[in-house]
Amino acid sequence: MLDAVSSETGGKVADYIPELALADPGDLGIAVTSVLGRTYFAGDATAEFTIQSVSKPFVYALVLSDRGLDEVARHVGFEPSGEPFNAISLEEGTGRPANPMINAGAIVTSSLVDGSSSQARFERIRSALSAFAGRDLALDDRVYASELQTGDRNRALAYLARAGGSLPGSVEDAVDGYFRQCSLRVNAVDLSVMAATLANGGVNPVTKEAVIDEAVARITMSVMATCGMYDDSGEWMVRVGLPAKSGVGGGIVAVQSGEAGLGVYSPPLDARGNSVRGVAAIRRLSEVFRMHLFDHHDEPPSPIASSSRTGGGVDVRVRGELDFIAAEQLLHHVRDLAEPVASTGREPIHLYLDGVTTVRPAAVRLLLAFATELAGEGVDLTMVDPNGVLVVDDSPTTP
Amino acid sequence: MLDAVSSETGGKVADYIPELALADPGDLGIAVTSVLGRTYFAGDATAEFTIQSVSKPFVYALVLSDRGLDEVARHVGFEPSGEPFNAISLEEGTGRPANPMINAGAIVTSSLVDGSSSQARFERIRSALSAFAGRDLALDDRVYASELQTGDRNRALAYLARAGGSLPGSVEDAVDGYFRQCSLRVNAVDLSVMAATLANGGVNPVTKEAVIDEAVARITMSVMATCGMYDDSGEWMVRVGLPAKSGVGGGIVAVQSGEAGLGVYSPPLDARGNSVRGVAAIRRLSEVFRMHLFDHHDEPPSPIASSSRTGGGVDVRVRGELDFIAAEQLLHHVRDLAEPVASTGREPIHLYLDGVTTVRPAAVRLLLAFATELAGEGVDLTMVDPNGVLVVDDSPTTP
Amino acid sequence: MLDAVSSETGGKVADYIPELALADPGDLGIAVTSVLGRTYFAGDATAEFTIQSVSKPFVYALVLSDRGLDEVARHVGFEPSGEPFNAISLEEGTGRPANPMINAGAIVTSSLVDGSSSQARFERIRSALSAFAGRDLALDDRVYASELQTGDRNRALAYLARAGGSLPGSVEDAVDGYFRQCSLRVNAVDLSVMAATLANGGVNPVTKEAVIDEAVARITMSVMATCGMYDDSGEWMVRVGLPAKSGVGGGIVAVQSGEAGLGVYSPPLDARGNSVRGVAAIRRLSEVFRMHLFDHHDEPPSPIASSSRTGGGVDVRVRGELDFIAAEQLLHHVRDLAEPVASTGREPIHLYLDGVTTVRPAAVRLLLAFATELAGEGVDLTMVDPNGVLVVDDSPTTP
Amino acid sequence: MLDAVSSETGGKVADYIPELALADPGDLGIAVTSVLGRTYFAGDATAEFTIQSVSKPFVYALVLSDRGLDEVARHVGFEPSGEPFNAISLEEGTGRPANPMINAGAIVTSSLVDGSSSQARFERIRSALSAFAGRDLALDDRVYASELQTGDRNRALAYLARAGGSLPGSVEDAVDGYFRQCSLRVNAVDLSVMAATLANGGVNPVTKEAVIDEAVARITMSVMATCGMYDDSGEWMVRVGLPAKSGVGGGIVAVQSGEAGLGVYSPPLDARGNSVRGVAAIRRLSEVFRMHLFDHHDEPPSPIASSSRTGGGVDVRVRGELDFIAAEQLLHHVRDLAEPVASTGREPIHLYLDGVTTVRPAAVRLLLAFATELAGEGVDLTMVDPNGVLVVDDSPTTP
Repeated sequence: MLDAVSSETGGKVADYIPELALADPGDLGIAVTSVLGRTYFAGDATAEFTIQSVSKPFVYALVLSDRGLDEVARHVGFEPSGEPFNAISLEEGTGRPANPMINAGAIVTSSLVDGSSSQARFERIRSALSAFAGRDLALDDRVYASELQTGDRNRALAYLARAGGSLPGSVEDAVDGYFRQCSLRVNAVDLSVMAATLANGGVNPVTKEAVIDEAVARITMSVMATCGMYDDSGEWMVRVGLPAKSGVGGGIVAVQSGEAGLGVYSPPLDARGNSVRGVAAIRRLSEVFRMHLFDHHDEPPSPIASSSRTGGGVDVRVRGELDFIAAEQLLHHVRDLAEPVASTGREPIHLYLDGVTTVRPAAVRLLLAFATELAGEGVDLTMVDPNGVLVVDDSPTTP
Repeated sequence: MLDAVSSETGGKVADYIPELALADPGDLGIAVTSVLGRTYFAGDATAEFTIQSVSKPFVYALVLSDRGLDEVARHVGFEPSGEPFNAISLEEGTGRPANPMINAGAIVTSSLVDGSSSQARFERIRSALSAFAGRDLALDDRVYASELQTGDRNRALAYLARAGGSLPGSVEDAVDGYFRQCSLRVNAVDLSVMAATLANGGVNPVTKEAVIDEAVARITMSVMATCGMYDDSGEWMVRVGLPAKSGVGGGIVAVQSGEAGLGVYSPPLDARGNSVRGVAAIRRLSEVFRMHLFDHHDEPPSPIASSSRTGGGVDVRVRGELDFIAAEQLLHHVRDLAEPVASTGREPIHLYLDGVTTVRPAAVRLLLAFATELAGEGVDLTMVDPNGVLVVDDSPTTP
Repeated sequence: MLDAVSSETGGKVADYIPELALADPGDLGIAVTSVLGRTYFAGDATAEFTIQSVSKPFVYALVLSDRGLDEVARHVGFEPSGEPFNAISLEEGTGRPANPMINAGAIVTSSLVDGSSSQARFERIRSALSAFAGRDLALDDRVYASELQTGDRNRALAYLARAGGSLPGSVEDAVDGYFRQCSLRVNAVDLSVMAATLANGGVNPVTKEAVIDEAVARITMSVMATCGMYDDSGEWMVRVGLPAKSGVGGGIVAVQSGEAGLGVYSPPLDARGNSVRGVAAIRRLSEVFRMHLFDHHDEPPSPIASSSRTGGGVDVRVRGELDFIAAEQLLHHVRDLAEPVASTGREPIHLYLDGVTTVRPAAVRLLLAFATELAGEGVDLTMVDPNGVLVVDDSPTTP
Repeated sequence: MLDAVSSETGGKVADYIPELALADPGDLGIAVTSVLGRTYFAGDATAEFTIQSVSKPFVYALVLSDRGLDEVARHVGFEPSGEPFNAISLEEGTGRPANPMINAGAIVTSSLVDGSSSQARFERIRSALSAFAGRDLALDDRVYASELQTGDRNRALAYLARAGGSLPGSVEDAVDGYFRQCSLRVNAVDLSVMAATLANGGVNPVTKEAVIDEAVARITMSVMATCGMYDDSGEWMVRVGLPAKSGVGGGIVAVQSGEAGLGVYSPPLDARGNSVRGVAAIRRLSEVFRMHLFDHHDEPPSPIASSSRTGGGVDVRVRGELDFIAAEQLLHHVRDLAEPVASTGREPIHLYLDGVTTVRPAAVRLLLAFATELAGEGVDLTMVDPNGVLVVDDSPTTP
């Protein structure tokens, strides 16, 4: 795998700030962390580099946690802009940057972090990104100093955002905070743990810390899915099918929701600013391990642990998580059992739900409707639910 | 559910062609078809209307089947354009329409269907869409006639595409085929079955016909995910999280990959041309039933059916589909069993894989590497695989 | 002059239609026709080529004559688009092409010519352009046939214009008429006479035919000044300062209003589609002969033919055209004469206007106000105006 | 005239900075200054207001004088952008603002003024604009302070220009200088004198000071002609036909090259930021006094002062400025005289050029060629040129 990717050549180490140009173009590191907390890695997976734009989704997640989706949406949109990373892309009418993955949107996002000063905001960002990574991340002072000196275009974007009303505070504070967040040092393993935290619904699977809540993780992955790879996001979805984000430091994160987080590092970039070998590595991982979001999976394991006829009727033992499809499987099975049998007539049916871990809302509704239907037909169905899993969850789903 | 959505007001029935304006604004139909082939529906789910742009992803799937991804990609791109449905959006340099969900891209796509004449191509389209729906779809002659008369902008897009080199044939043939495909009559149930066919990896779950292959279904859902709702695609991903496509006839399809297809119908449209109540219905279904692509699911049911100590060691019975995470769960379990026990020393471990339906490539690799690792440690691990599921699948994943 | 320009190399003969590629890249012709009707020419000034886009201002002039400015302005705008010749440039809101010098605007303009059929409209165009040139212009059938075959982008522009409401008739008729107008054969002498007709207020200075009226000529030159050289119009104004129009056949016209018309021909084109040596020739002519619109001229010849003291006072004989500045010169002179002289007191002043050809409105007003002022001061001023030139002309100035 | 314009209603006094909103919406002042230095005015022509964007062409003229056209062109372009005044409009590739009349271009232009500090540069600007106006212009401190506080968009444009390489110095210095230049106080009379200085080839016709040279005036008027009225420049050229520039303070200048300068003041603005009554006033002045650049003038006064047969042949006395057309008139006349007369044979011809003020290069060449031609025919032509006006001027025409 590493060999296949190493053979990819081409690309050019970023040099728009002098410090970045010092990176070793030969470095290549890959890491995968599962939502069970195990990390697999290869190559230069502990070589450090600055996080750059890979910070954007994680700071966006922090701001969603601080302010909620509705307030954040007044300042930054969700739409892919079809344009490069440093595009202006302010929406007509609202003046909002198109999304938080382009620079204009990321600068506004960074400025929305709670905190009374630029320094305080940065400390919260550093602390949050460290929680995602599971270790303390440090600032690269020299890269930060370089960014400050060469950031005219970003200052311009910030002034445009402020003139449009989407940037509330001072421009210098906003770009200062943004440059610092971009200058945090990470390695490929850190990125894989950060991504795995999103994959795991916001809980760092290594440290077990709940960094953000599920809804925030869901929104963050959604925005990465449509906007994370800039003007290449559509083709990335087709060919890779994982929410992702790249940075000019050579890092890329990708998330297989519910499964794992990926982190790669290789400095040479293509014309769009993405790591050439990083893209190749994640694309190959996705293909070989069938990680694509829309990959077809065979029918999931049946939720029916056992089904046996006893003296008193039929005992059906149910297990695992019941989602819509699992509930359907269960219904098909019980519907068959409920058919009158010539010799014995209808037998009572007992559903034992004690082996069930959770029941998704769709399944709850489906089961309750089904039970009512069977009762109407005179079937004697008992559901044994000692853990009370058959409860409709109506809690709101947006932060 | 239907009531909640019915209370949504506003929107305006499309009137850019006179025939569309005749639709009953009060109609509201919803249907869900699971990948197990069961359909649930409510309201005016069998009221017919013209499919319009909802046809786009299905014709794209047909063309991918006919020509393969690489050839199709030379004619139509994958990128969200950040622009309305009738935007020009031809890529600089290549002249390709940005994606197959905007009109320019859909017209080019339609023209790429195999067939020696416009009539032959349309018959293949009608036949394919009928296979998706599981019943013969008929042409609405009056809508088709109306489209032909009012299609100047679409003709313009076709001429631009031909001038740019992405449309190979005659403009009149291309728009004629496109107008016919848009004029096929469907109902909400049809749409749900069509969507369920995508959700089910290309196999119609009702008729069991394999309409397209898995890879084509994956690509089609990918493009719907980033481009299906035009300049609203990013927010749709955040708030709904399902690949979808709407049409000015009032229909919308949405796909919960691996689970179900949704079809809704309600004629009044918002300013972007999406059905007001259709959007509300799908959004509500997604929220209530937690259908969002990035919704966090609890840990899936363990693949370990049973694990029992016998005289000859430990027997572990494995079941269902083994993906990366299931394999990890298995590894954790076996790793614990492999620890030397004070009283008995290490016991032999037998993994029975006969209950396993399929093994994903990532799991195969993980299991083989793990077995090698344990062997190196002197653990006596036997894998009983009567069905030969532990095989690396290296078949290509793109059509 | 011809030698200096001949040494310009580079450029490429247009080949987007095969017939154009047959032109001799070495041909170079230059012609100047003065508003007095004399033509000066050099080189291949009688070599024929197709007029192409050079036809645009003249057909626009014809349509302004047919329909008047207000109606034409409902279909085509006046604004430079900052874009290449084949840009789409339809105004948001109105759907009008930005101006009549880009293809979209020229196609709409061509379709607005009075006539019951495409053939009839073309005959009027041919006839009008022949009147501008002072000889019958013929259609180049082979170029016309080529244009018809390769005109997809122009058809697209026409469909967009029709969809936007600015093109009233059939698309095929419109592009057919446009392709014919572009395929008329001209030479550099023809172009110079056509331009001189604009320079001469619409009267062909050779044939003396009044082809269009003054207001139409004024509007036509105005649009050429801001839009004639596409996305190079601003720099052309700075460096050349003459309303102009180029065509891919290698021709360029330029107008020195009130003085002369220029026509040049040389097939090799630059990247913007302008004749390389044609541009160099007109630029050089403008520089050497100080033709720039904003070139500073010294004070014009005094309108005072003679001013002599006689027994009965002072006789001032005025001559030529009196514009604002000439009137001011006259006022200064008379004001001096009106000063009381010690020896004689104030003398009567007689202004003889019989040598005056015309008086511009500004001058009429100035003279009448001045006369009133002097009368108020007790000066004895008599104006002898046998031809009645001191009349305010309030006729409208737009067609 | 004033009454007609006063009846124009509508428009809104600028309020993007609080100080501007204090202007009296009823104020209306109009002034015309001829190139002979006489000023005509009416209404509130001495009411003061801040010059705002009307400063742009004059500062551009100053910078052209300081640095020459070629160097300035490396920083700012010449092309109309087809966009509003505060558009971004940086050229792809070069990063240059499209032209010096939009804010981005004006800020860059302002920063190019010679001077070692922002203060020094502003003093040169103040001094130059005062020279154009013929009196010392003062800074409006309160408007300047307001501009500084509300200038985010302008800062953004400056940062974009610096990031693109067209702004050489500090952004704060550049916008500070620009805000000061916009805050200079002027009245309508000042504007008319400033415009008349351009009309008069750079020499202030009142103070007689040579403020800029002719070539700079020509370039400045050229850029005003194509870009001065923003996205309305094309229609302005058609309907008014005078180079012009407006400002949000309510002022407008317009130039009738070689004739006069116009200045108007009325605070209420239309949606594009132009003074409603100012536009109406200049449009009406242009129409009534036939000031349009492409207005057709009758044949200019003949350069032949007298032509009389004497004993020794024919004496032709020539007068005034000889341009191309005057030379042609002379040629026609002499050609007639040169025809052999039956009774006397060919007579000698004497051209007396002592009454000629200047001869344009085109005329020199024409006369010399003609003399050679006549000599070849054996005509005895003598030119008496005591002032040596028949000299080809080959001096360069760009600064």
